[in-house]
Amino acid sequence: MLPRGRPRALGAAALLLLLLLLGFLLFDGRLRRAAALDGDPGAGPGDHNRSDCGPPPPRPSKCELLHVAIVCAGHNSSRDVITLVKSMLFYRKNPLHLHLVTDAVARNILEMLFHTWMVPAVRVSFYNADELKSQVSWIPNKHYSGLYGLMKLVLPSALPTELAHVIVLDTDVTFASDISELWALFAHFSDTQVIGLVENQSDWYLGNLWKNHRPWPALGRGFNTGVILLRLDRLRQAGWEQMWRLTARRELLTLPATSLADQDIFNAVIKEHPGLVQPLPCVWNVQLSDHTLAERCYSAASDLKVIHWNSPKKLQVKNKHVEFFRNFYLTFLEYDGNLLRRELFGCPSQPPPGAEQLQQALAQLNEEDPCFEFRQQQLTVHRVHVTFLPHEPPPPRPHDVTLVAQLSMDRLQMLEALCRHWPGPMSLALYLTDAEAQQFLRFIEASPVLAARQDVAYHVVYREGPLYPVNQLRNVALAQALTPYVFLSDIDFLPAYSLYDYLRASIEQLGLGSQRKAALVVPAFETLHYRFSFPHSKVELLALLDVGALYTFRYHEWPRGHAPTDYARWREAQAPYRVQWAADYEPYVVVPRDCPRYDPRFVGFGWNKVAHIVELDAQEYELLVLPEAFTIHLPHAPSLDISRFRSSPTYRDCLQALKDEFHQDLSRHHGAAALKYLPALQQPQSPARD
Amino acid sequence: MLPRGRPRALGAAALLLLLLLLGFLLFDGRLRRAAALDGDPGAGPGDHNRSDCGPPPPRPSKCELLHVAIVCAGHNSSRDVITLVKSMLFYRKNPLHLHLVTDAVARNILEMLFHTWMVPAVRVSFYNADELKSQVSWIPNKHYSGLYGLMKLVLPSALPTELAHVIVLDTDVTFASDISELWALFAHFSDTQVIGLVENQSDWYLGNLWKNHRPWPALGRGFNTGVILLRLDRLRQAGWEQMWRLTARRELLTLPATSLADQDIFNAVIKEHPGLVQPLPCVWNVQLSDHTLAERCYSAASDLKVIHWNSPKKLQVKNKHVEFFRNFYLTFLEYDGNLLRRELFGCPSQPPPGAEQLQQALAQLNEEDPCFEFRQQQLTVHRVHVTFLPHEPPPPRPHDVTLVAQLSMDRLQMLEALCRHWPGPMSLALYLTDAEAQQFLRFIEASPVLAARQDVAYHVVYREGPLYPVNQLRNVALAQALTPYVFLSDIDFLPAYSLYDYLRASIEQLGLGSQRKAALVVPAFETLHYRFSFPHSKVELLALLDVGALYTFRYHEWPRGHAPTDYARWREAQAPYRVQWAADYEPYVVVPRDCPRYDPRFVGFGWNKVAHIVELDAQEYELLVLPEAFTIHLPHAPSLDISRFRSSPTYRDCLQALKDEFHQDLSRHHGAAALKYLPALQQPQSPARD
Repeated sequence: MLPRGRPRALGAAALLLLLLLLGFLLFDGRLRRAAALDGDPGAGPGDHNRSDCGPPPPRPSKCELLHVAIVCAGHNSSRDVITLVKSMLFYRKNPLHLHLVTDAVARNILEMLFHTWMVPAVRVSFYNADELKSQVSWIPNKHYSGLYGLMKLVLPSALPTELAHVIVLDTDVTFASDISELWALFAHFSDTQVIGLVENQSDWYLGNLWKNHRPWPALGRGFNTGVILLRLDRLRQAGWEQMWRLTARRELLTLPATSLADQDIFNAVIKEHPGLVQPLPCVWNVQLSDHTLAERCYSAASDLKVIHWNSPKKLQVKNKHVEFFRNFYLTFLEYDGNLLRRELFGCPSQPPPGAEQLQQALAQLNEEDPCFEFRQQQLTVHRVHVTFLPHEPPPPRPHDVTLVAQLSMDRLQMLEALCRHWPGPMSLALYLTDAEAQQFLRFIEASPVLAARQDVAYHVVYREGPLYPVNQLRNVALAQALTPYVFLSDIDFLPAYSLYDYLRASIEQLGLGSQRKAALVVPAFETLHYRFSFPHSKVELLALLDVGALYTFRYHEWPRGHAPTDYARWREAQAPYRVQWAADYEPYVVVPRDCPRYDPRFVGFGWNKVAHIVELDAQEYELLVLPEAFTIHLPHAPSLDISRFRSSPTYRDCLQALKDEFHQDLSRHHGAAALKYLPALQQPQSPARD
Repeated sequence: MLPRGRPRALGAAALLLLLLLLGFLLFDGRLRRAAALDGDPGAGPGDHNRSDCGPPPPRPSKCELLHVAIVCAGHNSSRDVITLVKSMLFYRKNPLHLHLVTDAVARNILEMLFHTWMVPAVRVSFYNADELKSQVSWIPNKHYSGLYGLMKLVLPSALPTELAHVIVLDTDVTFASDISELWALFAHFSDTQVIGLVENQSDWYLGNLWKNHRPWPALGRGFNTGVILLRLDRLRQAGWEQMWRLTARRELLTLPATSLADQDIFNAVIKEHPGLVQPLPCVWNVQLSDHTLAERCYSAASDLKVIHWNSPKKLQVKNKHVEFFRNFYLTFLEYDGNLLRRELFGCPSQPPPGAEQLQQALAQLNEEDPCFEFRQQQLTVHRVHVTFLPHEPPPPRPHDVTLVAQLSMDRLQMLEALCRHWPGPMSLALYLTDAEAQQFLRFIEASPVLAARQDVAYHVVYREGPLYPVNQLRNVALAQALTPYVFLSDIDFLPAYSLYDYLRASIEQLGLGSQRKAALVVPAFETLHYRFSFPHSKVELLALLDVGALYTFRYHEWPRGHAPTDYARWREAQAPYRVQWAADYEPYVVVPRDCPRYDPRFVGFGWNKVAHIVELDAQEYELLVLPEAFTIHLPHAPSLDISRFRSSPTYRDCLQALKDEFHQDLSRHHGAAALKYLPALQQPQSPARD
């Protein structure tokens, strides 16, 4: 052990001797490498970074760019990788470049996520996993990670040739420390070492775990490939591509398949060429399988660096201290990702795309403006995680229609009923915090009705700011609809059971979109009773209307909103009929997917749908009411978002200001035709409701 | 600068020379002290901790106990201190002993909080601030922290004499690193230094900020006392008590008062005795006032250690990078404190009170038991933060009555209406996550109706586990009621406007509690209409009942629950009348505060109130229906908590198991008298509802 205690206690001579000795030992570096598998990180190389009393392994300089590669495929791994990235960003102090090898699903999710996340000093590049498949698909593999696990083997050729160093991570690791400390370990590589790895923390590679257990060859316990330091430059020079292929082919002559994907092959290569590997301190890959030996590592260490959930059971794994590690994981799972949009002081970096314009626009806002909150909310770029849960896109059908709606946590209860009423595809935007997104996940998993529906796409838009961004949410859901037509609904409405089929038939009959530029109106009704038996036909609905068990929507408070639908005519109608736009009209409509977007300036509540119908009318969409279509609003307590602003005295003034600006834009686009809407915009607003 | 880069590049001779030189410099220590105010922590002493190449300042050994003292008074500071503690616990790796100097309010809050938090390796001691007041109340002080800020001066005498070192923190600091690194700085103190402080990061003490600005004397910019390292042993030896008093008295001859409380006095003492202070690196107290100079510190540093919100505006302070720091603060504000209940591996420590029994009980549960989740939820100890918001206890009045209820986020909208209907004291338990508690806070602040009510006590019970702990919540609210009587209500009921006055009059007339052991029944009704005009009298209520606008509560689904109230008799009644208990009776009652508690085994939904009424009846409470009292249930969507379990097939089976166990306990307490309830317990349960 090194001396502890106050220096004055030591004689000067002994001190000098010690210093000299220490200098030699440290400079040699061999001591450290030998200690690298020891549990105590104090003995490993990772902790000398900041020492300034001997030439330290160079810690990455304050603003050095660190490169990280991750292979990620599918909806569930995409969620995992985001938790990993959150933990990495929480502790990082350097600019990062993420190299993501993804399938189409993960790319779609992660591209949108990072684009809207706008984290300073993080660059993301995507690589097409499908193009790499052929390079590894010849390897028989039994591991749950499938082909994607094996792709780590081809990173030296898949990543840009100018990239010399990279940290490779599995999607199931969590950081508990600054990644630059891991990067610093590259400095310990000898001239011939190319791969940094932590020893495997189980007895797998020792063999004989059960009868006929024949693992791939490895040095001792072998190494775990959940965290890898790769010297890409040297690997390329050393002919890595041929090296691992030769080894794999040879082993596969006697072994039927890899059991642990890339890890078996890495270990077989290392067994053959032990000089390639630089062992890393165990704390950089604390492995939590069922029969983990990791306790040897973490009970001696004062500091854990990376936790690896390398059991197929993931967080459900059972071991003595799993609660501790689970808590750690949950920290980042539920962590508000918006808080990671923090800059790195003193590291100038290219701002994320759009960030500069956004900063400028925000800077131009006047905090004294009574509508400041509204304007700030409109400018807010929300993180968006599309298809948060596994989703099967609907097969292409020419008249198919997607129900589009948005909701927050307090309307989750509507989802089951909605699924029963609408058997077709849905695209739903959910306004949630990161923690709520996890509650949502558990809610879906607990519901057999919801878990069974693969045609419902849930898009999480992360909460930020005090006002509900209703139209931004609608636009996210609308943009993600994959059928040619969309039914623009609201979450507290249940459509007639027959509506999905009826709409598709009507779209076909009317030649909507192709022959006819029209919006099909679905008449809206409401019940004021919480317990209510839903009508199975128009006849039943009319009967309920007659006995006062149902009303036309907002009959008591704001009949203007739906008056143009002409309920009296609808009662008798046998065929679709055209109606004229009038002020305050806000029907629920079916339109082609390429319809105008909702105006995102309307945040909070009020005028959000009305403005959209104005735009449709201005663009000369016919309004056609469908005689057999209906949808019914269920009562509910006002949402928190509404309660907070209903009583606000500035609310109405700001809404009027927004309406004025909306009309200015309308005039700009439609010229004199927009004059028609001017009186409507100057009317007093209806009571704010949803 | 010290050499960076690979050692091999240097000749061996130069190396040796450098080592020798370095050794001398480091051992001397003067260099470090000179660098302590430098922005770069790499140059400060805090970063040599883990270096093993020269005698390092001893980092606290793995399990060394660190002592922290904080002065905290009132509701708002108690919330602040919890955020500070969360940040400290997040990074800490050592056992901690917190020494909390508190007023009665803060002690009540924090004692319960820490007791229920059960964090391993954290000990908490309380010291009575009121007893220290007289020692500092003679000092005229203009600072917003009032008398409490000044109390830091008397810590050397207030804390136990065996305590030699302590870190003293203001409630408005946030940790961004492991506190043991701060503790390690004690090792840099020379034999005469007694106080470690960071330089003040503003020009305040330079004077002349405005005309007649005359700050207290200080060395240069002076020091900030938000983070202090105190050598208590040496301070006591050096006669600290007299020292600061002498200085303060002398300065107060020419200065009217302290402007910055204790900080002015600490600085004046240090100006007189500069040898007392050990300057600490700036990163250990990054001060965020309006005109902060902290950027000099943090833009050079790669690592911030402690952030100090030392402006009276706190998070609303305006400076260039406040967004960055605010994000950091929000991380811990919204952090799930349950996740901090993690053990320190390899540090044996006395478990928190009750933790061992709890662990044993949890370990005895059988995961295969279909009711495992229920049993686990019953055993869960929820963190409890009583009086989360400022609260004025009601003046003692002999017949006063507190409305007791519990709720979660989805019922916040009820609070305003409830306040309008019930002008008396309320004790409400809220089941929230840490993040939701902040949303709740903003909700209250945004509502003039709620913000004006100081007689409503909100007690936050933090969420943990899948089942709603309805009776544990009721018990928290009940235990915190401060009037002699309580009205045990539910959050979705609105009482008659006159109920509060009427109940107090009835309690007095009936001699409830003193002459008569009785529970006063408040008859319950319901409306199925979401929009509804509340009756102002019994006459109006009866009229609404007759036209079918109101029903008796659960008339359609479960009339048994309230049948014994005998609504027909109530209609005509002019005086209170006694009714008999019957199976499934669950009226809303008014009882003395010392009534039986709710049975916490009933989690989720079902039988929670019924069991309480059984217990009241078993304890021979008379059930007296009040002729003019009524309360009305408003309709609402089912809560998420209910939806999740209503459809569970094991739910009913588990509930029956709980009921059986309840009856066993009942028999144990009441003997043969409990036989009466046996048939009721074996009946099929009503549909789960709230």
